[in-house]
Amino acid sequence: MERRKVGILGATGMVGQRFIQLLANHPWFEITWLAASDRSAGKPYGEATNWKLDTPLPAQIAKMIVQPNTVPTAEQLASGEVPRIIFSSVDSPIAKELEPAYANAGCAVISNSSAFRMAPDVPLVVPEVNSDHFGLLETQVSRKQNGGFLVTNPNCCAIGLVLALAPLEQKFGIESLFVTTMQAVSGAGYPGVPSLDILGNVVPFIKNEEEKLEEEVGKLLGAFKADETAGTGSIDLLDAKVSAHCNRVPVIDGHTECVSIKLKTPASYEQMVAAWREFQPLRAHHLPSAPLHPVEYDEAENRPQPRLDIARGNGMATTVGRLRPCSLLDWKFVLLSHNTVRGAAGAAILNAEILAVMGKFKFAGARQEALVNA
Amino acid sequence: MERRKVGILGATGMVGQRFIQLLANHPWFEITWLAASDRSAGKPYGEATNWKLDTPLPAQIAKMIVQPNTVPTAEQLASGEVPRIIFSSVDSPIAKELEPAYANAGCAVISNSSAFRMAPDVPLVVPEVNSDHFGLLETQVSRKQNGGFLVTNPNCCAIGLVLALAPLEQKFGIESLFVTTMQAVSGAGYPGVPSLDILGNVVPFIKNEEEKLEEEVGKLLGAFKADETAGTGSIDLLDAKVSAHCNRVPVIDGHTECVSIKLKTPASYEQMVAAWREFQPLRAHHLPSAPLHPVEYDEAENRPQPRLDIARGNGMATTVGRLRPCSLLDWKFVLLSHNTVRGAAGAAILNAEILAVMGKFKFAGARQEALVNA
Amino acid sequence: MERRKVGILGATGMVGQRFIQLLANHPWFEITWLAASDRSAGKPYGEATNWKLDTPLPAQIAKMIVQPNTVPTAEQLASGEVPRIIFSSVDSPIAKELEPAYANAGCAVISNSSAFRMAPDVPLVVPEVNSDHFGLLETQVSRKQNGGFLVTNPNCCAIGLVLALAPLEQKFGIESLFVTTMQAVSGAGYPGVPSLDILGNVVPFIKNEEEKLEEEVGKLLGAFKADETAGTGSIDLLDAKVSAHCNRVPVIDGHTECVSIKLKTPASYEQMVAAWREFQPLRAHHLPSAPLHPVEYDEAENRPQPRLDIARGNGMATTVGRLRPCSLLDWKFVLLSHNTVRGAAGAAILNAEILAVMGKFKFAGARQEALVNA
Amino acid sequence: MERRKVGILGATGMVGQRFIQLLANHPWFEITWLAASDRSAGKPYGEATNWKLDTPLPAQIAKMIVQPNTVPTAEQLASGEVPRIIFSSVDSPIAKELEPAYANAGCAVISNSSAFRMAPDVPLVVPEVNSDHFGLLETQVSRKQNGGFLVTNPNCCAIGLVLALAPLEQKFGIESLFVTTMQAVSGAGYPGVPSLDILGNVVPFIKNEEEKLEEEVGKLLGAFKADETAGTGSIDLLDAKVSAHCNRVPVIDGHTECVSIKLKTPASYEQMVAAWREFQPLRAHHLPSAPLHPVEYDEAENRPQPRLDIARGNGMATTVGRLRPCSLLDWKFVLLSHNTVRGAAGAAILNAEILAVMGKFKFAGARQEALVNA
Repeated sequence: MERRKVGILGATGMVGQRFIQLLANHPWFEITWLAASDRSAGKPYGEATNWKLDTPLPAQIAKMIVQPNTVPTAEQLASGEVPRIIFSSVDSPIAKELEPAYANAGCAVISNSSAFRMAPDVPLVVPEVNSDHFGLLETQVSRKQNGGFLVTNPNCCAIGLVLALAPLEQKFGIESLFVTTMQAVSGAGYPGVPSLDILGNVVPFIKNEEEKLEEEVGKLLGAFKADETAGTGSIDLLDAKVSAHCNRVPVIDGHTECVSIKLKTPASYEQMVAAWREFQPLRAHHLPSAPLHPVEYDEAENRPQPRLDIARGNGMATTVGRLRPCSLLDWKFVLLSHNTVRGAAGAAILNAEILAVMGKFKFAGARQEALVNA
Repeated sequence: MERRKVGILGATGMVGQRFIQLLANHPWFEITWLAASDRSAGKPYGEATNWKLDTPLPAQIAKMIVQPNTVPTAEQLASGEVPRIIFSSVDSPIAKELEPAYANAGCAVISNSSAFRMAPDVPLVVPEVNSDHFGLLETQVSRKQNGGFLVTNPNCCAIGLVLALAPLEQKFGIESLFVTTMQAVSGAGYPGVPSLDILGNVVPFIKNEEEKLEEEVGKLLGAFKADETAGTGSIDLLDAKVSAHCNRVPVIDGHTECVSIKLKTPASYEQMVAAWREFQPLRAHHLPSAPLHPVEYDEAENRPQPRLDIARGNGMATTVGRLRPCSLLDWKFVLLSHNTVRGAAGAAILNAEILAVMGKFKFAGARQEALVNA
Repeated sequence: MERRKVGILGATGMVGQRFIQLLANHPWFEITWLAASDRSAGKPYGEATNWKLDTPLPAQIAKMIVQPNTVPTAEQLASGEVPRIIFSSVDSPIAKELEPAYANAGCAVISNSSAFRMAPDVPLVVPEVNSDHFGLLETQVSRKQNGGFLVTNPNCCAIGLVLALAPLEQKFGIESLFVTTMQAVSGAGYPGVPSLDILGNVVPFIKNEEEKLEEEVGKLLGAFKADETAGTGSIDLLDAKVSAHCNRVPVIDGHTECVSIKLKTPASYEQMVAAWREFQPLRAHHLPSAPLHPVEYDEAENRPQPRLDIARGNGMATTVGRLRPCSLLDWKFVLLSHNTVRGAAGAAILNAEILAVMGKFKFAGARQEALVNA
Repeated sequence: MERRKVGILGATGMVGQRFIQLLANHPWFEITWLAASDRSAGKPYGEATNWKLDTPLPAQIAKMIVQPNTVPTAEQLASGEVPRIIFSSVDSPIAKELEPAYANAGCAVISNSSAFRMAPDVPLVVPEVNSDHFGLLETQVSRKQNGGFLVTNPNCCAIGLVLALAPLEQKFGIESLFVTTMQAVSGAGYPGVPSLDILGNVVPFIKNEEEKLEEEVGKLLGAFKADETAGTGSIDLLDAKVSAHCNRVPVIDGHTECVSIKLKTPASYEQMVAAWREFQPLRAHHLPSAPLHPVEYDEAENRPQPRLDIARGNGMATTVGRLRPCSLLDWKFVLLSHNTVRGAAGAAILNAEILAVMGKFKFAGARQEALVNA
């Protein structure tokens, strides 16, 4: 079968490495282009990167020459030299400049950056939760011109959280919630958190993280309102209060979150657990990276734990546990999500998979080039 | 100056070791008796214990023979062989049996155990917060008979928390609060938490901890109502909702707590910080273990942290930081407290110091024996 | 294809769990019997064990009832109720009693215990290194009587070390070596090392470990001398001085070892690396658990590292790096080996695989029962 | 009493912070000048630094304005604006340029940098071990011209090691030794080791560390040979083979080292331990930072450990343990030393103290300015 060519912007960073690891044997996508900053451009990827994952760097990727992250020309796109589907994991200031430029040039930019998540015309999507928000794509100018567009996935904490919240919002409605995170160091990239700051320690602060988490939940669980006349639409933010405390802990991968929640309609323990276990919105699509159960509820008294539960659903499932009454709101529970798989590269790849199924990869005179010859 | 003789029940455990460390050069108390379970009794303390602190075991303590933890006879007390002031750090099931028996025999039992904290006639005291609760002592039968009594200090999480809450309760009133703890492994004693459970991990469960924390806060911040006719009294629990999430993290010493709070009377940032900084209720007493500032507010954006702030006030101060608005309640903040100093042995010693100042150490025909000859 | 029935003695411990994980989809063996101490016997395995691995406990294993570890009767073996092939990971004192009894009853006992490793008639084998030592089996009385026998694999440190040493011994001869280990906590089982002892710490002592490592290397690299008249044989220990320093470090899985070595015949850097890379003694056998490259040499200046290299060869390969001259002996290098996969359960399974290929599983009147019906 | 004015070059780094902490209440020295790179110069120290120690930054130091690290003029020295005694902890490339310039300008530069440790005319000194090497000062040109000079202390690993070796060299002679280090992350400064590299991991490589350790031991234990005619001298390096393996482990402070040693004269266990315990070469000098016992031998089977033994002698003592026979050389033992106290700032301060006692602080026309008015 033919696979679509994809590229990675910011290929040498920690999230870039996860893209490479997760796309290594992907049935639908094939990496044909890697770009990074000037420091890395021109070098073989194996030299340019400081590979920090515990699976080996694929040999054919190691040999690929890292390209500069300059915006591609029409020729580069037409020839297939630069692929039409671009996964982006560049830092926010660079994303601000490059991502719209790539979209305007005619690429589908699937970004893990925070730069445009809250922009009114940019879908912020977790496929199991709000794939209807992709309707916002039609409001993007580039989309109409040449098929290019920009979509984003949320902050690593927000993804695990909304996966646990979505079934509750759908069945019972959410009035307010309180969340305290205990976040892994891989979320800060490499070199990221100095060991002197985190060995045997807790740092009760991550810059802008609480703000992102509070506002992204509102957009993710918001409603897409189509404007059928104009063929566009917008998002009504969720009307719920969210209060977040974010902490860094000495864990490599896996964000743990303690949640207290008040529902609009009361729910029993059994109803809550059933809502999570029955949540399988993508089942019909057979997406390669979608876990069979996006939310797994574990009844053990001391789960989830990063060391034991991080790999569930190949790192794409959220594990929930310890559901118990809250003396202030309604219920308390704990959730865990893999922050660099489900919370970053895997989230973007799942967005690309659902976009493929939805037929959104249609580019001006470019369909052929988007496919790799079998 | 003469120092009062004191003994330690449960001397070989982690809290017992802290008692020994903190009492090593205490100006008012001198350890003359160490007791532990049958396994240790009869051995020199240096052999019986597995010393786990980073200061050396004092040589004269190492040589003391560990006594069995049997209830002392009248002769042993009268002769001074067993001291009248007993610090207890035995496990709860043993405390249930031994502590009342020691009190009935005529000892002042100053306990760190959870067994009797919520008993209606037992003071649960943090001296800066509710030393008036010692009024409950007069309701204890032993007290009238022979001067013996039983007092307790709270759970390690509750102590740091109520130190931060007391100034707020006094000035503004507390309506409700959330607290998520990230607790150090030393709180579980030795051997305690297996390394396979906590290295690079978070365990979102500590047995009975959330229940203890929620209920002890209510008693600590409750009001002592004297019944002047009967010469006794009782505690009216604080009428505030408290919801706790407790977690274990890979930190040796120092419990970090994330708090969201709703006040009865609105308060500004400046008023909150002033309430903490001006809180010095014990200043007049010059207690040897009382920190000058029981609550220190740090304005840095990323404090408090266990590794950097645990030693403030010789481990007896609570550090508060990151005061900021809460979108759900009124304010969010973070606090840190040393769990085996302020949260255990130091708490009991401070209780003993304030009891000494209040003149509560009066035993039937025993005053002389309670003092060490200079 | 039919798979041979196997059982596990000591199934609930950490190594027992690894046996279950690694045998879950084994093409040659199927777990049909689990035994543990009286505390666990009679319970479903899922209840009896405290599963500590990051892959889920297989559902069909969770339901199996744990059997008592009593020696099987002839009927239990004849009926196939107790399988003929028994993996053992019980503690040494229990192994001393049970393992010979199981062998005498007619079982092939493949043990990870240290109890009989140095016994003159018991093979201590790493298949890539000294599978000819299985010749010792013929000296075991049970072998002749009913086909039962006892084989062992070495200490977790010794396995990684001899895999790196064997190619050097074969090509150049070893005169002496130093080895300093930095060992993971999983080697001590569960609960094992208390977190208070190892968080942010190094413990320069592991009971009996240095002795085991020094003596086991001598036997593993020793020569099997067949006594053809008697149809038996014995091991001539390697005539090399080995000096070991063993340390515990805060790592979950993966023993790192620093080695300095003096060879009998000088070797260049290229010859050393080639010896490791060309070492593939089992290639012809296509054993399911044998890594293609038992020794991988990594040229990066800072490898191997537990976090990055532990999974090579599915945890069965030894990674070697940093070969450089030693100012005291000839060469210095570093090696890494997965201590609970290659160093324990995987070692025993590989022994079983080579024994199967060698046709050593022949039991008195029992061949049929040893196979699971397809 | 008057205290000598001292300054710190590189005051904002991790070692700079230790200088400030250790000099805070020093009886002989007072910090009057702090310098750092251009990025920090001009700011109050409290703003310029990222204080990472667990004792508070002294308030008067926090207010001091950080000076540029330019070489002082004669006027600045004459006026006392820049003190004559300069502790230096700048990076090696900067040290190469600045330290000789400061010495030539007339300062006593007491450096922790590696830049000049092996220079033939620069003393590399641990006061308990080789204070006679200060005789090399007389070979420095600046010394004769204006009193300025440059002295260094060794690498953090070398200090702990030579303290344990010196008593053995003096009594029995050393023929060869093998040392494997397990080094704390604080040795790499801040931000230093990324947490992704060291959490739950071991890194078997520290750039240039093995080379430094091997060569510095040779110089430290070498003999100063005075050339009495010329009034100068030189060092005869120790004629012993030293082989080092250096590793980074997840420990905050405290380097652990495993040593095997061959002596020239055989020694018994008792003689070895006595050599360490009786080693008190500085006792007569009453230096403020010198530990009473520079080498403490601990007989417990599992000591020394960073978490338990790092603070001995206020971080200035080396703890030795586990003396046992080595099957390859003569003896094996383990040692521990605090790498940022004894291994860096404390080492330089102790050098300054012994230099003061030896009367080496004599500057051209400057004696008065070197003292702070009482």
